Amino acid sequence: MQINNVLSDINNDIKKLDKCLYSSMSTSHPYLQNSLRHLLRAGGKRLRPILTLLSASYGRIGREEAFLLATAFELMHMASLVHDDIIDNSELRRGKATINKIYGNDYSLHFGDCLLSKALSIVYQYHNPHLNMLVTNVSLEMSKGEIEQISAAYDYHQNIKKYFYLIKRKTALMMSLSCQGGALAGGSDEKTVKVLGRYGHYLGMAFQITDDVLDYIADEKTLGKPVGSDLQQGIITLPLIYILKYNSRKEKLQIMLEKKRLDKENIEQILQLVKETAAIPFSLNIANRYIEKSLKELNSLPDNQTTQTLRKIALFIKHRTF
Amino acid sequence: MQINNVLSDINNDIKKLDKCLYSSMSTSHPYLQNSLRHLLRAGGKRLRPILTLLSASYGRIGREEAFLLATAFELMHMASLVHDDIIDNSELRRGKATINKIYGNDYSLHFGDCLLSKALSIVYQYHNPHLNMLVTNVSLEMSKGEIEQISAAYDYHQNIKKYFYLIKRKTALMMSLSCQGGALAGGSDEKTVKVLGRYGHYLGMAFQITDDVLDYIADEKTLGKPVGSDLQQGIITLPLIYILKYNSRKEKLQIMLEKKRLDKENIEQILQLVKETAAIPFSLNIANRYIEKSLKELNSLPDNQTTQTLRKIALFIKHRTF
Repeated sequence: MQINNVLSDINNDIKKLDKCLYSSMSTSHPYLQNSLRHLLRAGGKRLRPILTLLSASYGRIGREEAFLLATAFELMHMASLVHDDIIDNSELRRGKATINKIYGNDYSLHFGDCLLSKALSIVYQYHNPHLNMLVTNVSLEMSKGEIEQISAAYDYHQNIKKYFYLIKRKTALMMSLSCQGGALAGGSDEKTVKVLGRYGHYLGMAFQITDDVLDYIADEKTLGKPVGSDLQQGIITLPLIYILKYNSRKEKLQIMLEKKRLDKENIEQILQLVKETAAIPFSLNIANRYIEKSLKELNSLPDNQTTQTLRKIALFIKHRTF
Repeated sequence: MQINNVLSDINNDIKKLDKCLYSSMSTSHPYLQNSLRHLLRAGGKRLRPILTLLSASYGRIGREEAFLLATAFELMHMASLVHDDIIDNSELRRGKATINKIYGNDYSLHFGDCLLSKALSIVYQYHNPHLNMLVTNVSLEMSKGEIEQISAAYDYHQNIKKYFYLIKRKTALMMSLSCQGGALAGGSDEKTVKVLGRYGHYLGMAFQITDDVLDYIADEKTLGKPVGSDLQQGIITLPLIYILKYNSRKEKLQIMLEKKRLDKENIEQILQLVKETAAIPFSLNIANRYIEKSLKELNSLPDNQTTQTLRKIALFIKHRTF
């Protein structure tokens, strides 16, 4: 299933969104425009801004007022990707060269800062204190999460609770914000804002778990980046947490992680270990439980086309392969 | 002249400000608290938040309401320093080890993001659209300025206009914002906000020029970082722009810059060249003209103790040696 098929109903909105994204840096330095264009052309699912637009449809103001906010959220997301790629020393994202690979780390660092500042300056234009508070809080918690992830590298004592704490900050907060923000910009009542916020949260948790699973089982071409890239940085995700807790071969894994550096052979061994155990089905089962929860939230919304699309998005994430 | 003497009138306010700064990350991860404490203990003049507090004194609300905003501005400034130190690969700032030296670049990048997000979340609490707009605009322009500085490295064609453009973004915008923000939080009228904004702008321009001069003539111990560190990154500041425009030995300098890399011998030669020409007096003369302009702005404010202190700050910057 392709996300484009899921979203065929709002194809025109997505085109309009891309125009907003392209022009968001239009009066700026040519370097900025070029690198923004490079990022946008590299693709991406635009999942966050789409959630914003859809969520805005429930309110009395509606979708039209939410395009700028949707643009801001995608810029915010891109800012975090650009900074992550510096940290990870990534050369590829979505199958294209990363900004740090093309323009260098120095440029990427400031480019990420630019994207975040631009995003926040757009958010401010809504003059909505609730929205402002949500956005800065998410931005802060996302950075904190990254810091905690660094300090948790190779730590085989971390449990599932810590993992959930980290992926909430990595992905779920931003997805939840995208929904809540859209609902606020669209003029929804408080209850709808909360329902959509929870839907986005559960969706984000499921999204990150499947992302972490794909890092073990996808092939490099579909993934657009090398398989096992979390592992290479010592990031312990759900499949490994399963092995470390439930599997008889956990000691072998602990010994490898203890060195705080994994060579190519270790990585191959761990990839194999993950395949041979129930680590992947265990993880996907948890992802599915989050999907179920997200779908349940939708039951309290009007049963219209927008709700249908949100339902399709949840099912897309359940079955996604990239 | 020490800044502490200049500011003896507001010593208690500075102590209170430091408490606000120390507690700004109090409920966060211990890593964050420790590195914030490290940054705060390393010193710094706290010039920006002091300008905010002083500027707030002119309004009907006054200084008390501006402490949080002053804290936010210092955090914003610190965020930019932390990111700059990654780019410059600096090991020392204010004579102490940099955050990137202690905790690594990965941590520093996210720590800088955290500081900026925290700062913006504090600013939002004022619910002041004018203030919000100013702050995000300055944050955006500062990052853009850094990007343009990267693309201008070793470029000996750059003129004084480009230099002013860059130092405005590097320093003057933030100083001007610190004054304007304080005035807004203190409840000043529009005219006072503008006067203080211009005072801060001129002060910032003078501050950065003296900073650039000190990078050539100060000694390492007083400066707290190596002399000639701009040069090592190919950053061309006012003393070099003077030589490139007015001095008969400009060709020698151009040939060195053309290689886009300066070895130790080149740097020694350039430092010598700067000393032997009128580059330093020329630059300091321009700094002084900005100081005069900043003092002139103060004439339209009430002649009270706060205005006296702002005057002393301008004179301190004129004569500063670190």
